[in-house]
Amino acid sequence: MTLDDLPTPCLVLDLGILRRNLAHMQGAVARHPGVVLRPHMKTAKSIEVAKLAAPGFGPITVSTLAEAQYFADAGWRDQIYAVGITPQKLERAAALGCKVITDDPEAAAAIAAHPGPLRALVEIDVGEGRGGVPPSQALAIARILGPRLAGIFTHAGHSYAGRSTAEMRGIAEQERAGADAAAQALRDAGLAVEIVSLGSSPTALHAESLAGITEVRAGVYMFGDLFQAQLGTHGLGDIAMTVLASVIGRKPAHQAVLIDAGGLAMSKDRSTAAAPVDYGFGLILDIDGKPSFGQAILTRTHQEHGEVSPAPSLAIGARVRVAPNHTCMTAAAHRCYHVVDGSREVIGVWDRVNGW
Amino acid sequence: MTLDDLPTPCLVLDLGILRRNLAHMQGAVARHPGVVLRPHMKTAKSIEVAKLAAPGFGPITVSTLAEAQYFADAGWRDQIYAVGITPQKLERAAALGCKVITDDPEAAAAIAAHPGPLRALVEIDVGEGRGGVPPSQALAIARILGPRLAGIFTHAGHSYAGRSTAEMRGIAEQERAGADAAAQALRDAGLAVEIVSLGSSPTALHAESLAGITEVRAGVYMFGDLFQAQLGTHGLGDIAMTVLASVIGRKPAHQAVLIDAGGLAMSKDRSTAAAPVDYGFGLILDIDGKPSFGQAILTRTHQEHGEVSPAPSLAIGARVRVAPNHTCMTAAAHRCYHVVDGSREVIGVWDRVNGW
Repeated sequence: MTLDDLPTPCLVLDLGILRRNLAHMQGAVARHPGVVLRPHMKTAKSIEVAKLAAPGFGPITVSTLAEAQYFADAGWRDQIYAVGITPQKLERAAALGCKVITDDPEAAAAIAAHPGPLRALVEIDVGEGRGGVPPSQALAIARILGPRLAGIFTHAGHSYAGRSTAEMRGIAEQERAGADAAAQALRDAGLAVEIVSLGSSPTALHAESLAGITEVRAGVYMFGDLFQAQLGTHGLGDIAMTVLASVIGRKPAHQAVLIDAGGLAMSKDRSTAAAPVDYGFGLILDIDGKPSFGQAILTRTHQEHGEVSPAPSLAIGARVRVAPNHTCMTAAAHRCYHVVDGSREVIGVWDRVNGW
Repeated sequence: MTLDDLPTPCLVLDLGILRRNLAHMQGAVARHPGVVLRPHMKTAKSIEVAKLAAPGFGPITVSTLAEAQYFADAGWRDQIYAVGITPQKLERAAALGCKVITDDPEAAAAIAAHPGPLRALVEIDVGEGRGGVPPSQALAIARILGPRLAGIFTHAGHSYAGRSTAEMRGIAEQERAGADAAAQALRDAGLAVEIVSLGSSPTALHAESLAGITEVRAGVYMFGDLFQAQLGTHGLGDIAMTVLASVIGRKPAHQAVLIDAGGLAMSKDRSTAAAPVDYGFGLILDIDGKPSFGQAILTRTHQEHGEVSPAPSLAIGARVRVAPNHTCMTAAAHRCYHVVDGSREVIGVWDRVNGW
């Protein structure tokens, strides 16, 4: 079986690039002795990828309880469910042995009252403005958690708005300092803080110091995408996951071709619209993953149609690969990866866990 | 089981609204004697919905070969696979008994040469600028198809850019006239044209005449969404499918709450950005589907987080329903519908076929 034989659209995952991306992040975190990498499986959602990214059933992060179940069934025991927990979800999280996060007094009280073996981290906000209390308010939540307190948790998602290495270093230091200060405040109050967890792919790679931090979370670095390439997380040649597609129409009058990777196969993510280079809905590569078509991008998407312009000279049924803007969103439309390793030969099919 | 018990996020489908939307379209098409409704299952992708929309295994339209397989297995025999076919996909389409569409001389030659019982429609472009040859070139493709010719096919997708009833009527007439002219040109050349197929939900509802047309395709009308409501396809109260979500964080300093319906559960579709009212990534309704929260919309989405603003006053874990911008994209992230009928009681779970 080769890429010429697969039904399209489908996902292609290049094992060599994946391994290189994993090694790059492992090296970046290893610069900080004592700091553990807790890979975020929200991007790959795959046991086979987790075997490489978190070998020996090492610590992982998950974004849904469906992921938690899938990885627990496969043997991973040390998981953080990294989305604010509701009282209604505690039972399922406890049954799976997940650590949970909270920034809410009522949720913290429910965790404290839950009969299960739950442990929780206090989510703080270091500038993203999504979830989390200000570091100064972490102690109040921690006191409600009482003996269930496991530590401090933050995510510098605003690193995605950074555009230079200096800016990334600044955001990484803001993330570190906020988490460290919150942990210190808890310890000063006599509380035991085992875990101080932070991360995003850009800050994990760019952090100059992780003093006071016990672990780093990152996920998108495994596959990479057109947006991360522009943040400097990796190079354009380091995008491990692409969408294999076929030419389904030719429109010479419009200097365009249509492919069968549309809004469902690619997602409607337009993150590169705010980046230095706007790739539309994706960059067109050849079937071998090489940039043979110049500036050809997916300019428009319908549900099952993608319009490519300027048009590569391709026959009906010819195959291309499309590098995604945002790999997490693109991967989620598909149920498996077709694994290659630098050639067209498909050496494996790896499943994913979608949904909730 | 009620909506208070379901894990979130998940899809809720209101059967009463669905039935009303189906009757509305059936009535609109019945204004045109002799014209058949061929519902497009790309939105619902569900056997249970197809039983209502195309009862008695009536003709349907599909957007993927996975749909074609799923509906064929369930008993639907008369299907059009409404995305330009490639030579590589002919075998699977033929095995399923699908009619296919093409606008390409090479694909048409492959159809003519295929040993299977394939029949094909010539796709023409009546103004959308996506797939299809100009009506004047349909004859050239039809001649290549030879005895495999089934008819003429078009889709006035540019109706989505229409904003008034008068404009919709104009686009509908353009669609009808283009398809009719192409069919007439084929008949004038002595070819048998059995099917003249057109449609989009807006033009199907607004067409004043369908003279010369044998069938109408439409799909999104079944569920409706915030974008279609602004096109006049239906009212805001006619959105049958919503996403049930839970409050996972409260941010009074930002006048916002976070819910567990983010970019994956809702999709990143921003179609209402170009509509009179921009609903962000969705409109927040109460758990009963009522507009109790004024102008509260999903202003930002992360993978699993949705930010709602202005913030409804809700406890952690409280439930809301989110009306989607584009129901086809939203539904595709989920594997089933939780069916209600005007109350919170879940009276059924209906599966979907995702992927390709």
